[in-house]
Amino acid sequence: MPEQLGSVLIANRGEIALRIIRACQELGIRSVLAYSEADRESLPVKLADQAVCIGPANSVKSYRDPQAIISAALAFQVDAIHPGYGFLAENADFAALCEQEGIGFVGPASDIIRRMGDKIEAKKIARAAGVPTVPGSLGAIAQYDEALTVASEVGYPLLIKAAAGGGGRGMRVVESGETLERDLSEIMSEAETAFGDPSVYIERYLTDIRHIEIQVMSDGQSTVHLGERDCTAQRRNQKLIEEAPSPVLDDELREGLAQAAVALCQEVKYRNAGTVEFVFDNIERQYYFIEMNTRIQVEHPVSEMVTGIDLIKLQLEIAAGNPLPLTQDDIVIRGHAIECRINAEDPQKGFLPNPGRIENFRAPGGFGVRLDTHIETGYVIPPFYDSMVGKLIVWGQDRDEAISRALRAIEEMQIDGVTTTAQFQGEILASDVFRSGDFNTAFVAKFLADQVS
Amino acid sequence: MPEQLGSVLIANRGEIALRIIRACQELGIRSVLAYSEADRESLPVKLADQAVCIGPANSVKSYRDPQAIISAALAFQVDAIHPGYGFLAENADFAALCEQEGIGFVGPASDIIRRMGDKIEAKKIARAAGVPTVPGSLGAIAQYDEALTVASEVGYPLLIKAAAGGGGRGMRVVESGETLERDLSEIMSEAETAFGDPSVYIERYLTDIRHIEIQVMSDGQSTVHLGERDCTAQRRNQKLIEEAPSPVLDDELREGLAQAAVALCQEVKYRNAGTVEFVFDNIERQYYFIEMNTRIQVEHPVSEMVTGIDLIKLQLEIAAGNPLPLTQDDIVIRGHAIECRINAEDPQKGFLPNPGRIENFRAPGGFGVRLDTHIETGYVIPPFYDSMVGKLIVWGQDRDEAISRALRAIEEMQIDGVTTTAQFQGEILASDVFRSGDFNTAFVAKFLADQVS
Repeated sequence: MPEQLGSVLIANRGEIALRIIRACQELGIRSVLAYSEADRESLPVKLADQAVCIGPANSVKSYRDPQAIISAALAFQVDAIHPGYGFLAENADFAALCEQEGIGFVGPASDIIRRMGDKIEAKKIARAAGVPTVPGSLGAIAQYDEALTVASEVGYPLLIKAAAGGGGRGMRVVESGETLERDLSEIMSEAETAFGDPSVYIERYLTDIRHIEIQVMSDGQSTVHLGERDCTAQRRNQKLIEEAPSPVLDDELREGLAQAAVALCQEVKYRNAGTVEFVFDNIERQYYFIEMNTRIQVEHPVSEMVTGIDLIKLQLEIAAGNPLPLTQDDIVIRGHAIECRINAEDPQKGFLPNPGRIENFRAPGGFGVRLDTHIETGYVIPPFYDSMVGKLIVWGQDRDEAISRALRAIEEMQIDGVTTTAQFQGEILASDVFRSGDFNTAFVAKFLADQVS
Repeated sequence: MPEQLGSVLIANRGEIALRIIRACQELGIRSVLAYSEADRESLPVKLADQAVCIGPANSVKSYRDPQAIISAALAFQVDAIHPGYGFLAENADFAALCEQEGIGFVGPASDIIRRMGDKIEAKKIARAAGVPTVPGSLGAIAQYDEALTVASEVGYPLLIKAAAGGGGRGMRVVESGETLERDLSEIMSEAETAFGDPSVYIERYLTDIRHIEIQVMSDGQSTVHLGERDCTAQRRNQKLIEEAPSPVLDDELREGLAQAAVALCQEVKYRNAGTVEFVFDNIERQYYFIEMNTRIQVEHPVSEMVTGIDLIKLQLEIAAGNPLPLTQDDIVIRGHAIECRINAEDPQKGFLPNPGRIENFRAPGGFGVRLDTHIETGYVIPPFYDSMVGKLIVWGQDRDEAISRALRAIEEMQIDGVTTTAQFQGEILASDVFRSGDFNTAFVAKFLADQVS
């Protein structure tokens, strides 16, 4: 492998495509953007060194089509493919295909993606690395007496989850031992009906939690962490506002989380940027590993703003076969960063996506304000993809300054023609609860309910 | 005085007006913008909390008219006036008028502005504070024998400067003692003719110099410095590119410069942001005080980017009567920042200003890129004021990253309709000489001459 990639195919769209193009240009790497017909007029297509249409708007036939992307990569003779996030970014088969074709993949080896993508396997790896996981059964539960044993360890309330479920489906909270047998039998038959698989797991039900994740960077031998991001401000498991550092951690907890994340990466000789996600129990003040994302994440800029380190460049350096160019001591957290994901959705209409034409766009500017976006005046948001139109990231010397700067930037930003979540995010940021830092993952739902009433 | 100003009148225009509005909004201070008729449609007018027209395009009757500004300040009952830079920012009479009217002035007391604005007086203050000044006569020279005594101390080549001259007029380099008498007599009679005053000064003629300045912040009792800015990349004494830290200082020189600047401020119990300017002799590796600017400077953002400190907010805090909220130990320089002053001028036509309509504007974005500008698509640059349309400021972990990021941002920026200096600044930044860091104030002129030939 060369010490620097000569060229990279970007198999993504929107702000993350632009983010990767910028990193390539600063490194002198030729950027080739693979785009769908729906994105032909988009800013990333204009700014990439080269661009190639890989298929129709339907992402299954373009951004999610491994063969279309591999063909483009071969045709443009790129050294590597950067998948961004979403689409094929955590598709082990696609990574394996790149390996077969001898094309670099800006991500970990396919078997690592596969193992970390399997929730049970990931949990086993975490336990092997000494990382705390949510108390519960590791494998599937088939019998009541098995459930009873696990329940006595886990305590009540507990959660029964269908193995084949996900996204909130196939879950039930069990408040006490009195209903365990009945609940177990009901959820198993529901799972059988819904998913054709009656297997369930049992986990402690945590009611007052935050979502805190650690940004890691590994070269296959060593791992460094770039501190945590607190993503507790969520709506229906969708992150709305992310910040670094977390307002609730003390030094000991912060170090514990970071070292847990590093240990997990070292356990599998991880290579690439990665995010190790934890739930943090506000009551017990204890963290538990939930999953690892083996890609760059939407909210990576908050870590960049507090560390000064360009994570996409680092990904590209590691993908070129280089060892980490920095040690843990080189990474110093400074100030506070907050990101708002600006979605073209209407909070007044249940966050209904509203794609359309941006009649007038004005980016906010000035000290400590960063807007990662692919939109411009006249841009038409296509209805085929997610509704994120940009990320507003602000930095301040402390959390208060970051909040006031975010509010100022939201006021200054102008996106005429479509409704976005920005105003709503401003209301959240300005609220006493958010300012206090003392909230949990239920906060946004409660805030919304209070607005209505 | 209150602990925070309730309201501020901004007596300026363009990017610095917007910069001050942003700081006010983040602090919750009501911003009132005083604007001329030529700036009625400008972005700062749109974004200020309130705006008041103070006169016609001609700045003598608006931005430079003390009475017009005072009237607006009284009418809007503001606590203080922020003068920005240029216009009345270093006008001691205006500051005195504010004092008389009981309106706060975001700047030092009028007598300090007056003393620092007098070059001889400023040099005396510097000497009293133990700060090195360029060797030469402190007062005016009237006789050859006096000149001969000074010349023997200063050495050759030396510079004879008409006391009433300035901006490069009324200056002569004397190469050796053989021509001193003739040169002295000629320049004195020229000065008599041109300025009605034959007085001249003698100074060592420094041929290989850099321009390095120290950003200070003082509250009237204590002074901190925020490191240096290197502004050596100039054309005809106009700064084109500024950076921090300087690529040529070692720790000892850096600390010496900073302490000299602090000593100067302490000597006069300075209050406000300030910049202490030095020439740095590349040959002797010695610095000499040349002048102090008692206002915020155009290039202040490079210091903000490497320290994380918002200098305008700090000015406003001090103007409210607060002591400095930080100590020297709180100020840590991180990474490297570069600013390009983007002027609507045509480098191909001798930097001729070309005001006009901006047909299409796209701001560069992403990590480490800040654009402080008042322009937007459709904005018409008025011909009445200076030609600066914005400042591109980039931050990188080191100088190389900052340069590559600046080049990427210049590529990405689009200002259709008027020619700007941005492309030329990109060529400078990309040159081997600039990259080496090893150049002097003659570099840009030489670079231009080499381009032509």
